[in-house]
Parts: sequence; C-alpha cells; structure tokens
Amino acid sequence: MESRTSDSDVVELGDGWSRENCSVVRALEVIGRRSTLLMLREAFLGTSRFDDFARRVGVTESVAAARLRELVAHGLLERHPYREPGQRTRHEYRLTAKGRDLLPVVLALMTWGDRYLADAGGPPLVVAHADCGAPVRAEARCAAGHLVAAHEARPHAGPVARRA
Amino acid sequence: MESRTSDSDVVELGDGWSRENCSVVRALEVIGRRSTLLMLREAFLGTSRFDDFARRVGVTESVAAARLRELVAHGLLERHPYREPGQRTRHEYRLTAKGRDLLPVVLALMTWGDRYLADAGGPPLVVAHADCGAPVRAEARCAAGHLVAAHEARPHAGPVARRA
Repeated sequence: MESRTSDSDVVELGDGWSRENCSVVRALEVIGRRSTLLMLREAFLGTSRFDDFARRVGVTESVAAARLRELVAHGLLERHPYREPGQRTRHEYRLTAKGRDLLPVVLALMTWGDRYLADAGGPPLVVAHADCGAPVRAEARCAAGHLVAAHEARPHAGPVARRA
Repeated sequence: MESRTSDSDVVELGDGWSRENCSVVRALEVIGRRSTLLMLREAFLGTSRFDDFARRVGVTESVAAARLRELVAHGLLERHPYREPGQRTRHEYRLTAKGRDLLPVVLALMTWGDRYLADAGGPPLVVAHADCGAPVRAEARCAAGHLVAAHEARPHAGPVARRA
C-alpha cells in the first residue's frame, strides 16, 4: 500500500485555482475538434484548396466547409481568391500568423504519435528544418533554454488566476 | 488576384502521401476528446483522485470514469491503491512515462491559448521550470537545437510512408 504523498515531485494545484479562464480550455474551444486539428495538419502540409482538405482529411464536403468557416472566423485561416485559366474565381485557404503559431500543437501530437503509435520502421512523415535539414519536434522548454521533463514542470497560479 | 503559387515557402505534400497511418490521426484516436485532454491537464496539475478529476474538469462522474478507464487502458495513467485512516482502500491515478510525454501537447495548447485567448493582464496559470524558475512553453525545435517557425518546417514522406 503506497501512501498518497509518496511522490514529493507532485505539487497539486488543487481547488483554489479556478479552471474557468484556463487557456487550455479556451484553446480547445477553438481547435478541440478532431477534424479541426486534421484540417490544420493539412494546412501545415501545404493543402490550400477546399476539395483537397475534404478528401485528405477524409470528411464530407459539408464538414470540411463548416471547419474551414470556423477556422476563418477564428482568424486561423485566410481566404485568398485565385483563378485558373478558363475557370471561375475560387478561394484557397492559408494559415495566418495566429494559425501558424499552432505548429507546436500539431507537431506535439505528431511527435508523441511517432514515438508511441507508429508502425515498426518509423513514422510516415518527417518534418525537417529548412535551414539545416534536422528533424523538427515539439518540446517543453523554459525561457532560459532548458529542456523540461514533466516532473520538472511546476504549475502555479498566474497573474489573472481566479479563486474557485 | 493572387496567383496560387505565389508563396514559394509552401511545399504541398499532396495526394501521394497516405494519411492512413498518420501519427497525428493515431494520437487523436487516443487523446482527441476535449475531456480527455482536460483530464490530462489535471494529471499534470497534480490531481490524482477520482472526485477531484470529475469536479475540476467539470464533467459528470460517469464521464470522468470513462475517460480515466480509457487513459489507464492506453497506458497513460496508472492506478495505485491508497488508504486513509479509517477509510476503505481507494485508487489514485498517476501519469506513466507515456502519459508524461504528453506534456508538450498540453503545454502547446496552453502556450497558444495564453498568447491569443487570455484575458488582459496575463494567463491564469504559469508553469515554471523547477531547476531555474523560468516559465515553460512548448516550442517547435529541430534536433540541431534551432527554434523552427512554421514557414521553416518542411514535411516530407518518412520511412513507412504509404502511397495513397
């Protein structure tokens, strides 16, 4: 029988902190749907056209349209008109700066999936750094530049913390 | 009217790459529910008891039980027995190594939410590095140590890529 407080690394934030204005909750309100995250994956893979999003994510056109509309409304994608010779004007979708800043989210999912869920032989996709060619991963790092493992991460109430 | 290929940074992965064994999809199959990610947030905040998970995530007991069962089945949480004086034996839930490796996912959501969705005055939660006290964020970084912006990330087919 283990005692509850055997792990001195664990600092429980507890009930004093309100989860009401939690940034994880707010982020999930915008990008918490599986199909939304897969649309974003596609945008990072260079997909820009409506038909391509729907087919590559594997959703119906109406689902793809709903997700793209939400992503534009939240300012993560922007619509740009384009026209091919002899065709009517269409729109393509491109990541905004706010959308591009979601790279660590998509990459963190990929990094973890590559490590624990990939088939033997390695991952199906590699993301390389354009400048040096080295593979890119998502990491937890502190502002002083140290890589941070979970047991070294200490949550505490921030400037706008509310009491529960 | 912009031309479609005006942005030379975009390298579209296209249809040749099968999304079937994509690590992002596989990761989302395990942790793609909003309530699952919030249970994981709680685990990183030190929550370990059933009642606390349910209340702090704001889900019913049956939803909390289902999420905890899945997280244990996928090997992200482990059940450990504990007993307080005069009480029956109960179980607490603790992150496994596989679960702790999800820190960048939860932190990436928080980092982005802090940046774009927090109230004026700053974020409600700060995660500090235990060793040096500096705030911890999720970042995209290459194996050579460079911070990588989205326009510098080049996806290409990996070792087990399938043709679509």
